[in-house]
Amino acid sequence: MSINSFGHLFRVTTWGESHGPSLGATVDGCPPGIDVDPELLQYWLDQRKPGQSKYTTQRREADEVEILSGVFEGKTTGTPVQLMIRNTDQRSKDYGDIAEKFRPGHADITYWLKYGIRDYRGGGRSSARETAARVAAGGLARAALATLAPEVQIRGYMTRIGPHGIDRERFDAAQISENPFFCPDADAADSWADYLDGLRKSGNSVGAVIEVVAKGVPAGLGAPVYGKLDTDLAAAMMSINAVKGVEIGEGMNAACLTGEENADEIFLGNDGKPMFSSNHAGGILGGISSGQDIVVRFAVKPTSSILKTRQTITKSGEATEIITKGRHDPCVGIRAVPVGEAMMACVILDHLLLHRGQVGDAGGKIG
Amino acid sequence: MSINSFGHLFRVTTWGESHGPSLGATVDGCPPGIDVDPELLQYWLDQRKPGQSKYTTQRREADEVEILSGVFEGKTTGTPVQLMIRNTDQRSKDYGDIAEKFRPGHADITYWLKYGIRDYRGGGRSSARETAARVAAGGLARAALATLAPEVQIRGYMTRIGPHGIDRERFDAAQISENPFFCPDADAADSWADYLDGLRKSGNSVGAVIEVVAKGVPAGLGAPVYGKLDTDLAAAMMSINAVKGVEIGEGMNAACLTGEENADEIFLGNDGKPMFSSNHAGGILGGISSGQDIVVRFAVKPTSSILKTRQTITKSGEATEIITKGRHDPCVGIRAVPVGEAMMACVILDHLLLHRGQVGDAGGKIG
Amino acid sequence: MSINSFGHLFRVTTWGESHGPSLGATVDGCPPGIDVDPELLQYWLDQRKPGQSKYTTQRREADEVEILSGVFEGKTTGTPVQLMIRNTDQRSKDYGDIAEKFRPGHADITYWLKYGIRDYRGGGRSSARETAARVAAGGLARAALATLAPEVQIRGYMTRIGPHGIDRERFDAAQISENPFFCPDADAADSWADYLDGLRKSGNSVGAVIEVVAKGVPAGLGAPVYGKLDTDLAAAMMSINAVKGVEIGEGMNAACLTGEENADEIFLGNDGKPMFSSNHAGGILGGISSGQDIVVRFAVKPTSSILKTRQTITKSGEATEIITKGRHDPCVGIRAVPVGEAMMACVILDHLLLHRGQVGDAGGKIG
Amino acid sequence: MSINSFGHLFRVTTWGESHGPSLGATVDGCPPGIDVDPELLQYWLDQRKPGQSKYTTQRREADEVEILSGVFEGKTTGTPVQLMIRNTDQRSKDYGDIAEKFRPGHADITYWLKYGIRDYRGGGRSSARETAARVAAGGLARAALATLAPEVQIRGYMTRIGPHGIDRERFDAAQISENPFFCPDADAADSWADYLDGLRKSGNSVGAVIEVVAKGVPAGLGAPVYGKLDTDLAAAMMSINAVKGVEIGEGMNAACLTGEENADEIFLGNDGKPMFSSNHAGGILGGISSGQDIVVRFAVKPTSSILKTRQTITKSGEATEIITKGRHDPCVGIRAVPVGEAMMACVILDHLLLHRGQVGDAGGKIG
Repeated sequence: MSINSFGHLFRVTTWGESHGPSLGATVDGCPPGIDVDPELLQYWLDQRKPGQSKYTTQRREADEVEILSGVFEGKTTGTPVQLMIRNTDQRSKDYGDIAEKFRPGHADITYWLKYGIRDYRGGGRSSARETAARVAAGGLARAALATLAPEVQIRGYMTRIGPHGIDRERFDAAQISENPFFCPDADAADSWADYLDGLRKSGNSVGAVIEVVAKGVPAGLGAPVYGKLDTDLAAAMMSINAVKGVEIGEGMNAACLTGEENADEIFLGNDGKPMFSSNHAGGILGGISSGQDIVVRFAVKPTSSILKTRQTITKSGEATEIITKGRHDPCVGIRAVPVGEAMMACVILDHLLLHRGQVGDAGGKIG
Repeated sequence: MSINSFGHLFRVTTWGESHGPSLGATVDGCPPGIDVDPELLQYWLDQRKPGQSKYTTQRREADEVEILSGVFEGKTTGTPVQLMIRNTDQRSKDYGDIAEKFRPGHADITYWLKYGIRDYRGGGRSSARETAARVAAGGLARAALATLAPEVQIRGYMTRIGPHGIDRERFDAAQISENPFFCPDADAADSWADYLDGLRKSGNSVGAVIEVVAKGVPAGLGAPVYGKLDTDLAAAMMSINAVKGVEIGEGMNAACLTGEENADEIFLGNDGKPMFSSNHAGGILGGISSGQDIVVRFAVKPTSSILKTRQTITKSGEATEIITKGRHDPCVGIRAVPVGEAMMACVILDHLLLHRGQVGDAGGKIG
Repeated sequence: MSINSFGHLFRVTTWGESHGPSLGATVDGCPPGIDVDPELLQYWLDQRKPGQSKYTTQRREADEVEILSGVFEGKTTGTPVQLMIRNTDQRSKDYGDIAEKFRPGHADITYWLKYGIRDYRGGGRSSARETAARVAAGGLARAALATLAPEVQIRGYMTRIGPHGIDRERFDAAQISENPFFCPDADAADSWADYLDGLRKSGNSVGAVIEVVAKGVPAGLGAPVYGKLDTDLAAAMMSINAVKGVEIGEGMNAACLTGEENADEIFLGNDGKPMFSSNHAGGILGGISSGQDIVVRFAVKPTSSILKTRQTITKSGEATEIITKGRHDPCVGIRAVPVGEAMMACVILDHLLLHRGQVGDAGGKIG
Repeated sequence: MSINSFGHLFRVTTWGESHGPSLGATVDGCPPGIDVDPELLQYWLDQRKPGQSKYTTQRREADEVEILSGVFEGKTTGTPVQLMIRNTDQRSKDYGDIAEKFRPGHADITYWLKYGIRDYRGGGRSSARETAARVAAGGLARAALATLAPEVQIRGYMTRIGPHGIDRERFDAAQISENPFFCPDADAADSWADYLDGLRKSGNSVGAVIEVVAKGVPAGLGAPVYGKLDTDLAAAMMSINAVKGVEIGEGMNAACLTGEENADEIFLGNDGKPMFSSNHAGGILGGISSGQDIVVRFAVKPTSSILKTRQTITKSGEATEIITKGRHDPCVGIRAVPVGEAMMACVILDHLLLHRGQVGDAGGKIG
């Protein structure tokens, strides 16, 4: 019952703090014989690397991932894979202010209340830096999926920054890699740039919504009733720093629909597999994948470390004010996109293995 | 790695199908010496019992809970508690239609695709009837909380049915038990009654939003980073039948806020504990409770079993139509209120025990 | 982390006390589509049923197993299987003596020290009666093995009672079912009968050694390094009441061998699979099955409930004497034979599923 | 369900191969506020370090442990502790022979059959080198015990090498650190030296028995019925490389005792705690510690890598001979002593935390 682990059979344990010597992911249960291309792992890490645009933190980290175990002559051996990333830009600065004061909206105060000790440097374990380890593990999961279920394609993007949502009519997947926001709507990306420029200059921050879609996921994945695919996805996404809401398919809006509206009607496709008239379900029925696209959305709250003055208290209980200088993301949601993709990859692979173990090829056919 | 279990130390495994002889919850890890009042357990079960108003299914179930183990002379012994509920109203009817056709929006098709066999009677394991076992386990969790953390108070209620939300200005906790909808807004309850009457007569159904609040939860509960309190709450709620979205505090709306708006400022209360100017966080920071109210919301999709004609296919792959007769909830969200409360109770107790084990009394103080 | 559960994917949780209304096993993770023959399940239970000879307790229990969930039209559905056994012979007697005094060598005192409460009736949860639930679960595991790995054959027998061991030269598997001791050596069975008669009349008890062999287990099962096949077998056997030692292959005697003696030399069989010159390893190398017979032995201590007078104390701390009347096994090891078989079946099935999930068909071939 | 992890709340995941860049232990669930003295950690590692006498492998490893996370200003923070050890003496030699041939008695063949790929260099993951990570984790467990239960004292020693056992009459704890065998009997140590000299020169190896005793363990630890203290100890010890048997207290010999002989009679000590007339139970009754010394013994088989010629096959299935040159332990049991101690420390701490979480201070008193 490691509480820094997730996954059933593909089991990821992350470790490390923002300003320690290194951090990483201990991945247990990766199947043997998977080709691991270090450059591809690095590619995924580069997606969330800080300092790539003016819209993310200016901390400079190479985020180079080192494979310390579990891979032999380019292939996984079935033993634990240790993925380590060194911290290189722990700026030697005075942390006195954060050490004594609690940032409103931040984990500072709850880590203190829980543990009676905290590594306050850069947020310690509660830093979004922990997500680098998730992305490394996600890269390994993708490598395994490439072998075991090559039809699976995972793509994340932002659909909202603060008050500005995308227009679904303008959705263009090709745009996602063309702007610093992973935004599939070129017009929205432009307005986000303006909006974030203003926020950044005023020392403020803002929240965001990320959507992650997995195409090509075979039907039958998910283990009812407490290891449902949506249950595990909800946990995976909610565990990401600053996430406050998770939706599958229609999400919260499902409350507004009637049964008639919500029911995705079923047809038989030319490939002998079920087809659906719509995807309100987000690809999951009864906790099990239906073969449709898996659609997950999550909301990231605004970064708590801002230049705005806020009321708070010190460890000694004295009332005070705080403004947080330093290098912070005006919209930490941006870098949450590759993290959401990584979590999706881990969960899908995990359930693929779990299904293989529990059910094998006993699944039903249509026709 | 039981996939029909949840919880770390207070570990609940539910079992049973809608139309089998019985169903129940095997609860492992309940602390010893807890007073268990069978009438109180029954009280909670009666809250979700079907057939109590015309707005829920007319299936008649006594839902009497039997304690088969783990309790001796009225107290828990620290050994597994088996809570069993017999199914009494499995109407002897022809299930042929459901046996062959897949209901759109229902788990019928995915259970088939996954397992190659399904107990189609009443939905089998995917039936909302499984939630009776959760409520029984939740009753036990409440009993343990009454001893170990008596200040914890858990209350759930509906905030939306279809297009009709409550008005927060009219929120009155005393109203919750005064209408068949667990609605804290008397006016909304009236309009819901009218709205559901219409839906029911037309054979349609509708979704809903439930909010569950836990007051008096001590600061420090939650185990970062993959056993966070919000992570486990998200999983717990998403595992409930028909849930499509889960929110903590501001939830999806957090995406729309700036850092300045979202930061709950901190003050020192007269009791020496932190106080906050607002509760955008829903009582959880960095995955750890802050001492504020824990606020969780989830959306339940409309019941899939409706009298409206929908297109579907048979197991043999033939196109056909389906309408689902029988006794179904026009708004299954109503009975999800006590289920959400039960899950909240289980998660809070579980994290109380987990914190006691992992951290003990090492937690920090203010001042 | 249910501590009344064992298994990774085939996950068994037992519940119930000696003198409660019933006890049972909640089995999660049994693959779907397995034929379950209730008479065969009952057959296994009858093997350990008390009161079948004068050498076991005279408590009369029908030990009828009821399947409450997870089986539909004779086949498993992939959902939890609840196996319940009612307690029928809880003789209404005065337990006052056991309630106040601690039996030397028994769990009475440690349950009290741990939990501060105990169901003293018949030993409560610590009673060997709990093993009935294991045998029921083991019966289900055997059913799954019959489908998934029909070549697996599991057989247990006694090799020692007190000072009297079997003679391996006289080993005859056909004898095992021909005497009340599961003894493969007819001569030893005769001498055991005499020896136990004497012990029983004097109110004493004695220990035993049980050996369980699994033939036909495919190579490759076992998950190094903390889910090794031998690790899980050791845990499974040590968890049985009164077990004090567990051995694989040579067991403790391995300490006396040289590397030259111990090395099972390897050849290629006609079937293209490895053959070995001997089986010091007990079929397991590096925690993984080699294809040879899996050989496990365990020692069961003598029953603590004896008619001999022993010194002890009361709950109040007063020095006193105790003799335990009632219906007890003079050699509880006898009924441990079917329990050991059941645990073997559960562990083998569990690792079969685990291997299928983690590794699939990536395993290596010779040649 | 990480299969390279052990422990419930103090959860250790080891990773790494014999000849990879490094190996280590990811320790999750260490309580916060524990003083961690790197020199003390190193002290424990030095106990099992190879190359310290001519009786262990001549591989030269500094075995320096680096703390990469979870410790801040000398204290644990409650977050995962990463303990890494670099491999420095991976001699660049030709592994061709081991790569193609399977060593009899070794995991070579089963890793191949299971995974279809193996890091054959030095045994890869199956190397006893993995135990360095256990010792590091055990050092952390000892540090936590020093704070939480300072009365606990753990000591391991050898009681047998091959045919030569110690004489219990000559047991002298002070001798354990005075010879290269952790032998409490000075005379036996002398004869072992002679015996091993002979074996080593002839290129042979031999097995051993190790006994580990924990004094001062509070009564009440152990979680029946599948997380019993003896169950977890059996698993912990059996998971160590080359272990073939595990005993608690009387162990296998319990089979030879009568109930009268085996029952440890109970008295009340001057401290108000129970005292026992003997310790056949090895300090554990019903899976729960009684307050007596916890006594565990395990047998280690002889090293499989020997200079003696043995028959085997190649990956291609050809019959061949093998002798294993290189640097190997003539008696790998010697270095298993600190490993057994480490496992004991981890299990005791784990159950201390588990008991604290599940039961708190509800335990019973005598008198």
